[in-house]
Amino acid sequence: MKASTLLAEVRKHKPVVHHLTNWVTIYDCANIVKVFGASPVMAHAVEEAADMANIASALVLNIGTLTSDFVEAMKLAAKSANRKGIPVVLDVCGVGATKLRDEKSFELLDCVKIDIIKGNASEIARIAGLDVKTKGVDAGAVGDDLREVTKTLAKARNCVVVLTGKTDIVTDEKKSYQVDNGDEMMTHVVGTGCMATSVIGTFSAVSRDLAEAAASGLCCFEIAAELAAQDSSGPGTFKEKLFDRVFLLDTETVDNRQRIQG
Amino acid sequence: MKASTLLAEVRKHKPVVHHLTNWVTIYDCANIVKVFGASPVMAHAVEEAADMANIASALVLNIGTLTSDFVEAMKLAAKSANRKGIPVVLDVCGVGATKLRDEKSFELLDCVKIDIIKGNASEIARIAGLDVKTKGVDAGAVGDDLREVTKTLAKARNCVVVLTGKTDIVTDEKKSYQVDNGDEMMTHVVGTGCMATSVIGTFSAVSRDLAEAAASGLCCFEIAAELAAQDSSGPGTFKEKLFDRVFLLDTETVDNRQRIQG
Amino acid sequence: MKASTLLAEVRKHKPVVHHLTNWVTIYDCANIVKVFGASPVMAHAVEEAADMANIASALVLNIGTLTSDFVEAMKLAAKSANRKGIPVVLDVCGVGATKLRDEKSFELLDCVKIDIIKGNASEIARIAGLDVKTKGVDAGAVGDDLREVTKTLAKARNCVVVLTGKTDIVTDEKKSYQVDNGDEMMTHVVGTGCMATSVIGTFSAVSRDLAEAAASGLCCFEIAAELAAQDSSGPGTFKEKLFDRVFLLDTETVDNRQRIQG
Repeated sequence: MKASTLLAEVRKHKPVVHHLTNWVTIYDCANIVKVFGASPVMAHAVEEAADMANIASALVLNIGTLTSDFVEAMKLAAKSANRKGIPVVLDVCGVGATKLRDEKSFELLDCVKIDIIKGNASEIARIAGLDVKTKGVDAGAVGDDLREVTKTLAKARNCVVVLTGKTDIVTDEKKSYQVDNGDEMMTHVVGTGCMATSVIGTFSAVSRDLAEAAASGLCCFEIAAELAAQDSSGPGTFKEKLFDRVFLLDTETVDNRQRIQG
Repeated sequence: MKASTLLAEVRKHKPVVHHLTNWVTIYDCANIVKVFGASPVMAHAVEEAADMANIASALVLNIGTLTSDFVEAMKLAAKSANRKGIPVVLDVCGVGATKLRDEKSFELLDCVKIDIIKGNASEIARIAGLDVKTKGVDAGAVGDDLREVTKTLAKARNCVVVLTGKTDIVTDEKKSYQVDNGDEMMTHVVGTGCMATSVIGTFSAVSRDLAEAAASGLCCFEIAAELAAQDSSGPGTFKEKLFDRVFLLDTETVDNRQRIQG
Repeated sequence: MKASTLLAEVRKHKPVVHHLTNWVTIYDCANIVKVFGASPVMAHAVEEAADMANIASALVLNIGTLTSDFVEAMKLAAKSANRKGIPVVLDVCGVGATKLRDEKSFELLDCVKIDIIKGNASEIARIAGLDVKTKGVDAGAVGDDLREVTKTLAKARNCVVVLTGKTDIVTDEKKSYQVDNGDEMMTHVVGTGCMATSVIGTFSAVSRDLAEAAASGLCCFEIAAELAAQDSSGPGTFKEKLFDRVFLLDTETVDNRQRIQG
């Protein structure tokens, strides 16, 4: 598997990626999709969320600043996406921090078909039913065997599970990938986690193999982050360079730097 | 006509420019007004939208992430602006993509006096009643004679119409301008279209000739973009340099680089 | 007093700082907390605002884009913070501009315990009951003796008052600090005022002396701004370098550049 193959597909097909995401990083989510060469759209009104999903090629949901009304719009968008047969990615951002996040995450998972669940270690553990404490939206490591947890969750929910961290784990029922690209600077700036979800959504729009799509998207994004980190003086300039580096990614660079196992 | 004349007026009078804009680019809209030397304000509560318009010198509306409630606040703000006699700019962002965007755009145009309608080719064509398909908020070219479409729409709605693209067309019933400044990098980053609308609003606050104001604002903004593009390594650094370059614009640079016809 | 002492505490304890802030600068607020080494969280749903405050070490409220519903969520969060005994910071952003901002600011001050009130000269004067006109959210100087105004307000509301400007005044009933760090470039970019509030919140999470915490936070933030200004070509690059410089701040630099009196 070469991540550069799907990068080329994204640039060729320029898929429309619809988002109902959080208000903190909404610009970053839109812009990362744009610099990958695709077409972001954000529309959260209950009156149009379904219509917009219907002209998209993937749907990204992120509960980072959820309200009950917002989750209703998410359901309408997701049902529309399910009918059209386009992939739905759910970032369970901050799940475990409050009762609302727990309830609404499970409500979404039960009401609509989620194709890819994405979170950090403590968020995925929470969705998998393990008892963990989340410290805000920045999660620490959890003690369980993470690879096993993702596999069990993927089976239970019949979907792809993406657990991001120093090493990312991407798994569906049958296979697993491990992505070892990235740079520590990603953890020092707000938005990299949400952007990663938008990237997964973008790549999922151009492949039927959603695990491969998620791993490829993360790999490309994180290679750009490696290059940006080399070229920046801190988290502020890193983020701007990250957009530059995604825009400038070429096949050779991606092939040379790709660190995917599985 | 010299675009630099109105640039100097903006910097001298520092107009308050009120916005009800979209949540994706709201920071960029505020910041572009600020770096031009004016004073942005954003207030969308139905309880204060009208009051804030009443202390402003221009009002910018943008339907990029509209809801029905948000459009009600837009109407209150616009009615207040109409009473005060300050210009109202409407960015019909994404019109044509969903039924809601179509309905609410026409509702706004019918309920309040819009002084400047701004959109890309497919959005303007939609507002003019032509049948086009919008692909998200990134529009392609449409086949009709764009100059004729803008003129007809300007006449029908008794307002200025601004159609942005590689060449921008600005027209009122009597005259037209064509602005040929700008750089392709503007199309690779989220926010340049929304910022352009905020700039048009800012310049409209300091001139009674709204077509001249819109053309001058676009010209200055796009000259800054040309300079920023020369000085950046991709869309991320381009956007930060764009703010720098707007802030640093001087009369001589604007006069030398201005490419306005008509 | 050394501002670097509390900077070290922030980096050591990485406090969770909960925000109900405005939609224009929400990213900047989150990111400035992050680059200081702390953990930002943003949650505005009435269903979870209180729960999130309960896992935080400080709460930041900012009325920049308030609605009535949003203020209800602020009250729930603040009551939860009051019960837990964590500091609550209120940025009275734009108060004086509209009736809604005036009413809701006083409603918050009367309904919940606010530990730190923060604003520019005209905003603080308004909260103190003086008659001033606000021009949008950018305030001019007011004629009264600002030091006296802050002291009287601090006494009346039994809290710390922070008045930001070229010189910042921080006062509680008993003592006052004057912070003279900072750079004029801070006034040319949107977000520095809101970020300052988030920084005050962050530092207040690690000290019982809230006046000292506020002065220390402002000092560190503004030293980073001084360094960023030296190193940037305008307000766009300044803002990215500001994040870098906060991230890179060291004890020696802070100690050498600290300009706090009182």
